Amino acid sequence: MATGFDPHVAAASIEKLKDGVRNSVRDELAVEEPLEIRVDGEPLAVTMRTPGEDEELAAGFLAGEGLIGGSADIVEVGPTRDFAANTVEVRTKSGLRRNPKDERSFYLTSSCGVCGKGALEFVKQKAPPLRPATCNLRPEVVLSAPSAVRSRQSAFDRTGGLHATGLFESSGELLVVREDVGRHNAMDKAIGSLLLGGRFPLAGMFATVSGRASFELVQKASLASLIGVVAVGPPSTLAVDLARERGMLLCGFVRGGSLNVYAGSELLGN
Amino acid sequence: MATGFDPHVAAASIEKLKDGVRNSVRDELAVEEPLEIRVDGEPLAVTMRTPGEDEELAAGFLAGEGLIGGSADIVEVGPTRDFAANTVEVRTKSGLRRNPKDERSFYLTSSCGVCGKGALEFVKQKAPPLRPATCNLRPEVVLSAPSAVRSRQSAFDRTGGLHATGLFESSGELLVVREDVGRHNAMDKAIGSLLLGGRFPLAGMFATVSGRASFELVQKASLASLIGVVAVGPPSTLAVDLARERGMLLCGFVRGGSLNVYAGSELLGN
Repeated sequence: MATGFDPHVAAASIEKLKDGVRNSVRDELAVEEPLEIRVDGEPLAVTMRTPGEDEELAAGFLAGEGLIGGSADIVEVGPTRDFAANTVEVRTKSGLRRNPKDERSFYLTSSCGVCGKGALEFVKQKAPPLRPATCNLRPEVVLSAPSAVRSRQSAFDRTGGLHATGLFESSGELLVVREDVGRHNAMDKAIGSLLLGGRFPLAGMFATVSGRASFELVQKASLASLIGVVAVGPPSTLAVDLARERGMLLCGFVRGGSLNVYAGSELLGN
Repeated sequence: MATGFDPHVAAASIEKLKDGVRNSVRDELAVEEPLEIRVDGEPLAVTMRTPGEDEELAAGFLAGEGLIGGSADIVEVGPTRDFAANTVEVRTKSGLRRNPKDERSFYLTSSCGVCGKGALEFVKQKAPPLRPATCNLRPEVVLSAPSAVRSRQSAFDRTGGLHATGLFESSGELLVVREDVGRHNAMDKAIGSLLLGGRFPLAGMFATVSGRASFELVQKASLASLIGVVAVGPPSTLAVDLARERGMLLCGFVRGGSLNVYAGSELLGN
């Protein structure tokens, strides 16, 4: 079935650590890129999405916000007139059903509302330079990090419904764990906890997250000067691009004694 | 350990269906509520979060956006002067390091940037009334829905890194499956796919999602007039509140022949 081009998936060269042995392997990643949704020539929203069904995404987004009432409100959905990458335009029959700017009907979340390359540029400019990779993490520290976080997820134990971020010293000492329904909030809380205690930036520390590693999480880690992100799930393409650009360690599928290294394998000791 | 008040967790009465038997049980849910982050008196962002460490969340959010450089930039973090619920205020020493309004450094995602009660009011106003519950779903249709979606997640098979939403007729016929790195995008795409085909609103259909059921997903389902949401994971408190308010079916932990009913159990047949 895996024939032809699939915009949802991209190939990557990674390292796999299993039973103490590291090998280079080819892997496939979920593609993550920003999409700007425009309506009648005006930018409306930017979302981090997997490419492939941009017209559907734009139409469904407008319907889910109550901005259109059905297909009769749409004249056309497709690329913008200037064919800018990662944009989609909806042309409506007679405007949106309400003016989204009149209402507090959207909420903001963190990330960079520009194209993928622009987002990487933004982080490069704003984030302090990482120090050279003198800071080696022992593989056993990384392999055991998810279970250390898991053992302190008291609200997850009761509900099964919360993401978590733990922050570790490179020695493996777990400093703080925070839980939240939003994965980005869990990381904000953990970083904020140390910051309010007077520790920021967090050079030499790494974050462990309970789920997947999105661009947004790696971006937050980068701006906090963390040395890397260790995830129980896989990363997206844009998360890997950013980690490589910033010289950060990015590990995923850290489970049962094995892990994948997507970026910064020189930071992982032997 | 589960003694005293924990702001992350709330109790709820639900129904559990197991081995064909339905019982009322007490359950615990992850709390989800909106938080407005204000800086020096001005609203900056609203995020759907689990209460409990709002000061940390605000501080970490600002650091992750490059808006502050550390605790030295903060004079105080705490409740707003008007003690409005679900707001937190950061008072800075000399303003933010850059003006977030000058830049496209945030992106928009869908949801209602007001307090929990307000969010429920918004959906009530915008969503067309649900028709009376003449539409019964057979339990076996709901129980088998997640595996039907899973069997069509071709990009997940290759990456392990994508959420999915499937839309079903109440008979159990699966109409469309869409995958995305963002759970809200997967639902937007699935709804948008039918909408662009001329089908909207989607009365009588239900959605099945691969992960947890957030407020945002139930809100989108409600605005599309779906009869309910079926999730492999658990819902948040606000998702349950909204589903009950709207008379929608909300099932979670639909796995291995059993499920929990959090709202609208009258829509689930015998």
